[in-house]
Amino acid sequence: MNYPSKLIENAVNEIARLPGIGKKSALRLALHLLKQEKEEIHSLTDALIALREQICYCARCHNISDAEYCMICSSNRRDQSVICVVTDTRDVMAIENTAQYNGLYHVLGGVISPIEGIGPSELHIESLIRRVYGAPEDQPVKEVILALSPTMEGDTTAFYIQKKLRDSGVKISTIARGIPVGGDLEYADEVTLGRSIVGRLAYE
Amino acid sequence: MNYPSKLIENAVNEIARLPGIGKKSALRLALHLLKQEKEEIHSLTDALIALREQICYCARCHNISDAEYCMICSSNRRDQSVICVVTDTRDVMAIENTAQYNGLYHVLGGVISPIEGIGPSELHIESLIRRVYGAPEDQPVKEVILALSPTMEGDTTAFYIQKKLRDSGVKISTIARGIPVGGDLEYADEVTLGRSIVGRLAYE
Repeated sequence: MNYPSKLIENAVNEIARLPGIGKKSALRLALHLLKQEKEEIHSLTDALIALREQICYCARCHNISDAEYCMICSSNRRDQSVICVVTDTRDVMAIENTAQYNGLYHVLGGVISPIEGIGPSELHIESLIRRVYGAPEDQPVKEVILALSPTMEGDTTAFYIQKKLRDSGVKISTIARGIPVGGDLEYADEVTLGRSIVGRLAYE
Repeated sequence: MNYPSKLIENAVNEIARLPGIGKKSALRLALHLLKQEKEEIHSLTDALIALREQICYCARCHNISDAEYCMICSSNRRDQSVICVVTDTRDVMAIENTAQYNGLYHVLGGVISPIEGIGPSELHIESLIRRVYGAPEDQPVKEVILALSPTMEGDTTAFYIQKKLRDSGVKISTIARGIPVGGDLEYADEVTLGRSIVGRLAYE
């Protein structure tokens, strides 16, 4: 594409490097920004720079945080004996939105993926092991819930963590796989349907 | 949604103000930016600030430009007697990409829209009239092509310009409406199909 100005070409190229935004959308966004007040552009760019330069991660669960320990880790209303292991912050937010979980989290920062060159040492797995084995005696970890995506990488990561925690005596569980609420049996794939039968729940 | 950090909440709110980007996409983009090098964030924000603060508009056709006159207006290979009137820069780029047009442009900067409070005086219509009536005698404007969207606002704008240019003796035309190339007659709407019959072309 031929751009009428170097400035717009630069901006489009930069915006198009964001995931899920192509050159056409980037041009639309750049032309939108051109029409905005200068202050609005600065409030956007300031927010992005502050985000990147001032962000903290919780020293315990590695979630994004405003202080040394995140709000969840430093809350005394949360059950300190359960740790839910997730891939990233979005998963924490998604689970928090359900209001069904009251334990702590551990954010891995990704999953094991040999193709992308991500091994266990690139993730926060070592600190999870330490959290479990090194828990104080009056506040032991009783359960580790693995809430990873049901992909090959997620399963590999879950298997790796399971092996590492095998000797800890801590209960290890994974979130249930099955038919989504409101989903139709007819349209469920075979693997999901199969898992929903294997993992069936008895009426109490 | 509860964000784990004020910084991320701020960034998400700022990003979500861009058109077509909701809170979920904004969060995805913010988390992506968090993983990038600081230099990359700065090259993005610098490009956006430079775009907004240093951009120039062509003094003649109001297209985005790096100099006082844009590349098209200052080219001596373009036919100076034809002016194509478009809504914004994207239309110029789209028509340039077809390589079917060799005249000049006039970028209105929008269309007349009473609902959004945009009247003729908010657009570059006055300068178009001046370009047509005030053209030097040895280089007169012979044709004005109205390439506006076939919406109510676009049609109103076209009608307004037509009325203003009526006494100039300049030929006024509009781009053809009809069945898109590769389009199926069956799926064309009635108005488009009707226009394609009214505007039919004889084989030469």
